[in-house]
Amino acid sequence: MSFLVFEGLDGSGKSSLMVALEQELQNKNISFYRTREPGGTPLGDEIRNMILRKEGPAPVSRAELLLYEASRAQHVEQIIRPKLASGVWVLCDRFTASSVAFQGGGRDISESDVVSLNNFATGNLKPDLTILLDLSVEESRRRRQGRGAQNGEEEDRIESEADSFHEKVRLSFLKQAKADSKGWLVLNAQEPPQVLFQQLVQALHERKIL
Amino acid sequence: MSFLVFEGLDGSGKSSLMVALEQELQNKNISFYRTREPGGTPLGDEIRNMILRKEGPAPVSRAELLLYEASRAQHVEQIIRPKLASGVWVLCDRFTASSVAFQGGGRDISESDVVSLNNFATGNLKPDLTILLDLSVEESRRRRQGRGAQNGEEEDRIESEADSFHEKVRLSFLKQAKADSKGWLVLNAQEPPQVLFQQLVQALHERKIL
Repeated sequence: MSFLVFEGLDGSGKSSLMVALEQELQNKNISFYRTREPGGTPLGDEIRNMILRKEGPAPVSRAELLLYEASRAQHVEQIIRPKLASGVWVLCDRFTASSVAFQGGGRDISESDVVSLNNFATGNLKPDLTILLDLSVEESRRRRQGRGAQNGEEEDRIESEADSFHEKVRLSFLKQAKADSKGWLVLNAQEPPQVLFQQLVQALHERKIL
Repeated sequence: MSFLVFEGLDGSGKSSLMVALEQELQNKNISFYRTREPGGTPLGDEIRNMILRKEGPAPVSRAELLLYEASRAQHVEQIIRPKLASGVWVLCDRFTASSVAFQGGGRDISESDVVSLNNFATGNLKPDLTILLDLSVEESRRRRQGRGAQNGEEEDRIESEADSFHEKVRLSFLKQAKADSKGWLVLNAQEPPQVLFQQLVQALHERKIL
């Protein structure tokens, strides 16, 4: 089994690519479990609401990071580790790299503090591969607004941050991927879904994951 | 101004001693602010409920510690630092030492991990004095049960832990106090309230805090 994480700005197409991969795993009779952060457990979903809601008291930067890590600790211990131990693949929408990008890159917290907290919360569990769907901030905003107009969903507290914040998040993702080319796969999210899926499957074959 | 923290097992008389000290500060026209952990802010009170409730999903050990630290980060940045900066004394019912005692001593988390998280959450803010009301686990249980019978309050999730857990918590408090005799004052919680108050005031004079 493998632990695959999908990262990228909102609107980068993580969900569509995960759905396409799930179909491929089903065709191959591979058991998988799809999950997301923050959240993934009942307690994690409560914490997710605390972090993302726009009404109610907002956490300061350090509290925000600690809430993400609390959700993650619960998620790893109750869901991710048991699934992997029972031979099930885990596909996760956002994981530790998002904390480095959003709280380390986007806010005022040092990257080394975020990495230490990630290691504590996960007990040093690392994904087998982190797939980054790289997208410009401008295109991310355009897609988010299109999605909002379509389904009436409002932006959450993090999505509502300024473009300059999301620009720092994007650069942090690219920096993390560059520093660990074995652990990351960077895809251009502007490519058509079918092309992205083919690139992902090819990379999984090359890395002997699939 | 000074930042004083009151620690000890439940039922050790922290509240009564804080009330007595507040009266003394009022007599001396010293502004003070009383607060507690977990909690102390609206977000912190939501987190407090997540940690202490007995219904609903319980956090695993690491998530529990991270939730305490999230509440603490919010509390330090929004309440404690601003109060101290404006010249107000802060009296706090539980702080970083409780995380070392309950999550480091009582649970399976290493003390050095707890200390690192305390430093991150507080930005290295330390109390001027931590007052430990030392009490045996047996007497703590007796007092908690008496209080419960009186006001109908049920024990929370942490109070409900076994005596062996609370024994480890007590030993951790004593160990922390011994390792930093300048930063701690240990009082025997079996002494009458008036004696405890006199010992506290004397110690504050000796240390030139009051």
